[in-house]
Amino acid sequence: MDSQESPEFYRDQSPEEANKADLEVIDYITKIDPTYNIVSPILTPRFAPSCTHQSMKWMGDLMKKHNNIPCQTHISENENEIKWVQELFPDSKSYADVYDQAGLLTERTILAHAIHLSEDEKDLISARRSGISHCPISNSSIGSGLAPVRSLLNKNIKMSLGTDVSGGYSPSILEVCRQALTVSRLVGYTTKNDKDKLSVSEVLFLATLGGAQVCNLEHKVGNFQVGKKWDAQRVDLSVENTPIDLFDWYGAEEPTPESKIKWFVDKWFFSGDDRNTRQVWVDGNLVLDKD
Amino acid sequence: MDSQESPEFYRDQSPEEANKADLEVIDYITKIDPTYNIVSPILTPRFAPSCTHQSMKWMGDLMKKHNNIPCQTHISENENEIKWVQELFPDSKSYADVYDQAGLLTERTILAHAIHLSEDEKDLISARRSGISHCPISNSSIGSGLAPVRSLLNKNIKMSLGTDVSGGYSPSILEVCRQALTVSRLVGYTTKNDKDKLSVSEVLFLATLGGAQVCNLEHKVGNFQVGKKWDAQRVDLSVENTPIDLFDWYGAEEPTPESKIKWFVDKWFFSGDDRNTRQVWVDGNLVLDKD
Repeated sequence: MDSQESPEFYRDQSPEEANKADLEVIDYITKIDPTYNIVSPILTPRFAPSCTHQSMKWMGDLMKKHNNIPCQTHISENENEIKWVQELFPDSKSYADVYDQAGLLTERTILAHAIHLSEDEKDLISARRSGISHCPISNSSIGSGLAPVRSLLNKNIKMSLGTDVSGGYSPSILEVCRQALTVSRLVGYTTKNDKDKLSVSEVLFLATLGGAQVCNLEHKVGNFQVGKKWDAQRVDLSVENTPIDLFDWYGAEEPTPESKIKWFVDKWFFSGDDRNTRQVWVDGNLVLDKD
Repeated sequence: MDSQESPEFYRDQSPEEANKADLEVIDYITKIDPTYNIVSPILTPRFAPSCTHQSMKWMGDLMKKHNNIPCQTHISENENEIKWVQELFPDSKSYADVYDQAGLLTERTILAHAIHLSEDEKDLISARRSGISHCPISNSSIGSGLAPVRSLLNKNIKMSLGTDVSGGYSPSILEVCRQALTVSRLVGYTTKNDKDKLSVSEVLFLATLGGAQVCNLEHKVGNFQVGKKWDAQRVDLSVENTPIDLFDWYGAEEPTPESKIKWFVDKWFFSGDDRNTRQVWVDGNLVLDKD
């Protein structure tokens, strides 16, 4: 963050100072966890307007040299920002192209928001295998617009969910799931195309394996495939005096085993909260136990 | 609901049967609570497409005769519905006019949704002193659009909030408040006018005194004015292990007594849930006590 556009309290003294600080953090984390098994450094140019091309290019070169260092930044969050980027980088073809010219669009790059991308930008991001973090609560709260998730999925772009607190108001990924569904229904309203509406299972995919793919961790986590780490929570739907027990189960029809599972998942998706999470495991270790 | 457009399981046999059933319910409730102090009947034509003009006119006449009977129905929830109403009532000037021709736009009428009203319809509803129940979660979940609440408030229309479960997924008015704010920010994005964004206190007004006004109960409830009923909840923000204690209080600055209150309210508004509600009084009676 060395650009004059960055507020002073947020600005690096020079590109050299910024690079030096980056390397110090990478060194520090590498000493603690050499294989980045638990904690990894991540290059974080806040977004294009707060950085010079020089400093972004330095980060892109670093990513080329170290094939285990990821990068995260914002892209195309709101319309004024897009105009600003075009003014600051007049030689770029697009916002995505600014990052691409710096070598920052890689398969290890996570782009937050991505609300107003052109078709060319979507194609470019897809070709580079970069991932997108969809942050529906933040987007709606800030009034940035409605991210067209289906159009990004259709381009085979890796997609995940993010909270972007405190742009958004909730740190809960379950709440983000609900709002991702809600936002996709408003996208469908806007485009008059029901195919733009996401299903509950599609949203839960974004929250699990989608997230793993965006972080390039899908070989380790993201679902219950044999050989992956046991990252799991036990959800209990019989918790009393919470929003989940306000309505009856099932519809008028007698449930089948399949419809019952769908009901359980839908019920948790729409009415569940942290009270239903009774136990949490990370890499096989029980890290939260409420029972 | 006597129109042939209504699904059969939902349809009255004839207007006469419908009227008879209405009068029976009104009679039954009037015997239990003659002044409608605790429970009141409410005429509920589901919405214009499910009723004939004849049966709506009968309800309008009944409202004229009995000046204590209210009415609730939907209006202008989505665009296909509006076209449908125009086809079914070709002599009407608008959806609102269908109700007005039947005598159903009164100061005792509550209209749910009101997303796509024309300026003329807003003027008519305002002139008739009818109220609107804004149901943001339902509207977003169904993908019906974004109700332009500011434009309705600017017309001096009485406005309240509703859940419309299970069009919406949550029976919590606090959750509806959050989504009313969120939706208004997306309205502001769409119109490019920040004035369309509601504030926290405006949304809380809709949830309290606004609701009382729409129900014509503002002389009895809706705020803490001396002489009104003690309808209140005690909110405790120190409840532990809930979303409310995840972040620090206040900002970087030392809080003033005024900023502290604003912080308390904002914190509850954005992170609170039923766990923070420790006691509830209705008309001075403690009806829920968790302590």
